[in-house]
Amino acid sequence: MTPLEDWLAYRAAATPERLALVAGGRRLTYRELEGRAQALASALRARGVAVGDLVAVLLPNGYRYALTVCALMRLRAVLVPLNTRLAAPEAAWQVGDCRPRLLIHDPACASVAAASAAAFPGLDLWEMADERAEPPEGRAEPVDADPLAVQAVVYTSGTTGRPKGAMLTYGNHWASAMASAINLGHHLDDRWLLVLPMFHVGGLAILLRGLIGGVPVFVHERFDAGAVSGALDADRITLVSLVADMLRRLLAARSGRFPAHVRVALLGGGPVPQPLLEEAAARGLPVVQSYGLTETASQVVALPPEEALSHLGASGRPLPGNRIRISADGEILVRGPSVMAGYFNRPEASAAALDRGWLHTGDIGEIDGGGMLRVLARRDDLIVRGGENVYPAEIESALAAHPAVIESGVAAVADPRWGQAPVAYVHARAPVAEDELLAFCRQRLAAYKVPSRIVFTGPLPRNAAGKLLRNALSAPA
Amino acid sequence: MTPLEDWLAYRAAATPERLALVAGGRRLTYRELEGRAQALASALRARGVAVGDLVAVLLPNGYRYALTVCALMRLRAVLVPLNTRLAAPEAAWQVGDCRPRLLIHDPACASVAAASAAAFPGLDLWEMADERAEPPEGRAEPVDADPLAVQAVVYTSGTTGRPKGAMLTYGNHWASAMASAINLGHHLDDRWLLVLPMFHVGGLAILLRGLIGGVPVFVHERFDAGAVSGALDADRITLVSLVADMLRRLLAARSGRFPAHVRVALLGGGPVPQPLLEEAAARGLPVVQSYGLTETASQVVALPPEEALSHLGASGRPLPGNRIRISADGEILVRGPSVMAGYFNRPEASAAALDRGWLHTGDIGEIDGGGMLRVLARRDDLIVRGGENVYPAEIESALAAHPAVIESGVAAVADPRWGQAPVAYVHARAPVAEDELLAFCRQRLAAYKVPSRIVFTGPLPRNAAGKLLRNALSAPA
Repeated sequence: MTPLEDWLAYRAAATPERLALVAGGRRLTYRELEGRAQALASALRARGVAVGDLVAVLLPNGYRYALTVCALMRLRAVLVPLNTRLAAPEAAWQVGDCRPRLLIHDPACASVAAASAAAFPGLDLWEMADERAEPPEGRAEPVDADPLAVQAVVYTSGTTGRPKGAMLTYGNHWASAMASAINLGHHLDDRWLLVLPMFHVGGLAILLRGLIGGVPVFVHERFDAGAVSGALDADRITLVSLVADMLRRLLAARSGRFPAHVRVALLGGGPVPQPLLEEAAARGLPVVQSYGLTETASQVVALPPEEALSHLGASGRPLPGNRIRISADGEILVRGPSVMAGYFNRPEASAAALDRGWLHTGDIGEIDGGGMLRVLARRDDLIVRGGENVYPAEIESALAAHPAVIESGVAAVADPRWGQAPVAYVHARAPVAEDELLAFCRQRLAAYKVPSRIVFTGPLPRNAAGKLLRNALSAPA
Repeated sequence: MTPLEDWLAYRAAATPERLALVAGGRRLTYRELEGRAQALASALRARGVAVGDLVAVLLPNGYRYALTVCALMRLRAVLVPLNTRLAAPEAAWQVGDCRPRLLIHDPACASVAAASAAAFPGLDLWEMADERAEPPEGRAEPVDADPLAVQAVVYTSGTTGRPKGAMLTYGNHWASAMASAINLGHHLDDRWLLVLPMFHVGGLAILLRGLIGGVPVFVHERFDAGAVSGALDADRITLVSLVADMLRRLLAARSGRFPAHVRVALLGGGPVPQPLLEEAAARGLPVVQSYGLTETASQVVALPPEEALSHLGASGRPLPGNRIRISADGEILVRGPSVMAGYFNRPEASAAALDRGWLHTGDIGEIDGGGMLRVLARRDDLIVRGGENVYPAEIESALAAHPAVIESGVAAVADPRWGQAPVAYVHARAPVAEDELLAFCRQRLAAYKVPSRIVFTGPLPRNAAGKLLRNALSAPA
């Protein structure tokens, strides 16, 4: 198998003067980024980090994060991104699961890091100072990577059970970037806006796509709808990845049409309410829906851009090189070159998830005659009411069309007669009666899909990636 | 290793209504092209062609050629492209070397085909009628291809010795198309013009790049400078591959600037005279020089587009995933995912050409401090004059700057004092004295590089791909 070169080293040799990264107030070319990454890699090596060592990273989006990813790839050490929102015991659990040699953390995460170090005495801590700090001098020469070598262990944001660390290889990322380029196009004047958390696969994949393709990545520390709206214009952004909630806030943050140079807003992270897609389309924002998981190194199914408007609500077809099928019990299975190598240190979970190359996603979906995937629900979110399958996303999409509804989330409650029943949690922008919303649903949904109750609530609970946390919905009921 | 899907089947499923192919007066979408290719594949299977069988093709560029390539991939039979200019004994030699099951030929090549059939009685002949003939009905379902499976055996146009069949795999083509897309960009509104012979790797690669990337390919039966010039405007061509002689004729065939939508003219096939590159640059034609061989599934080194003008005369840097180095005796070595699997039925030649993954190209070159390759000569073309290396391309480039010179070719003659000496064969557009050209060279070249003689001649001998045949230069002297 042909080895893959160090992507940043390739860029620094082939296109040294191109803009590579805009983050934390800095603008770096590939030559500059590589110089800094080399220096950081040298410092990490001096600290004992070697090929194959795991290094946990607890940093916010930004320059330090990007540099650390590049430096770890230079050493072929393995990145373990930790969610900066984790409570100390949660972080310690993940640290205990994978036992990294080093934990690089932001000063703001010092107490979380310290708790992990206390629990696991072998753990070295590196508090990485602010964005302006320069790494020490040094050179670390690039080496080729085996496509099967693990680049990152990314803990899945699964809502049930303990998180598992998906091992993503260099080959996974390469295949993912290629498939994305074929589907979305790869324009030499592209500029990616990175507002997803870099500790999730969606954000990490944008950074790697930029390095592989040689187009600049503009990193925002967090999603701020006004800042994103401004950047689309000021930074002449052509590509941005969002989840549905971010899209909703972006549409609310600006008025009128979007600039024509924004050629794709890639949408992942779960089902999207139809009215949101319609509004984006009406305002000239070319939303391309996609479907992917941590275990597939980001998007693995997406719409071709020319069908984005004619197939609102579908997730698309498998990207080149990938296959999908639906199992007998409705689960989406994925096979292809960006499917992970397995879960770190979990042979049984890996064997269960990867059945002869087919990844069991835990999501429920259907494929129409044209090969188009529609994701219906997370398997854990599926509501079975008297033998009928009820998909929360379908009810949420119906409610989103009501003018008083900002957003809604549907979860199951136990029902004495039907086993389960859906309850809708609604964040409203104006007073509206429960009866009115239920009547609105009855006009749009089969009777068995109409929620048994509406619960009015504030903004819905979401994880760092903007995904709705359905489990947390039942609490306020 | 993850299998690769049938590229046309993927396109027919993912982007069925996109324009796929314009050839022989037809315009076909991917859906239409796949329907026809399925039917042809069924007919070929009915004729006994099975997985892994070799099928020789002796057709001119066009619809039938493209369809046959797709049908053979559908069956995972192996394409053996034969040069339509071959004399009957030359074709028979290649047929005898690889022993295909079937030879598909144009009516115009009937006697060449018949001579091969007479020499090898097991050979089945299929005379494929004109471009308008429809294949019979039928369906052949697509199957995945192992990336290591051979897609084509392409005989090299080497100027010395017997041709050898380079085995190019699906993985070779995939890697080549990806690397090209990363370097040149992959715009969803791209349109490739295919004027190189499809029986050479340069033409075949364009067809496959189109299928993989989902952008249409416009096929011309042969290079005609006026037709190419017209197509750039009428078909809104964005990408075209040329060799130096075609570029020269294209520049002569039209005046003024080239349309801005032509974003890359990819130039391969050997060293290019500097004045030609300068004229193209001055007239707004973005020439991107490249270097590749049959054995590397087309370009494997190219300039990044932004450096095309600042590095006129260089061939560029290795495309992503590839490496180059120069051996102790000056030979260019290439390693990477598009390097062939070997020569068909030639274990010794394969072992000699592929030394631990490094392809010995037989070309002489140098790599500068910036990693930029400069191809100096075919090893067989190198002239050694009194211990000094003289590269024909350098003399040709100097002569091309003289206003009276249309083109020139330099070859070695035996020299009693220095062993070898260069002779320049010049095709002039106006009368010019030998002494004047020699003086012109003396101003531009070291004394040992100045030709010992100028021989005036007509158009220079070139092969079907437009490459200068230096061996044929000595004849008229």
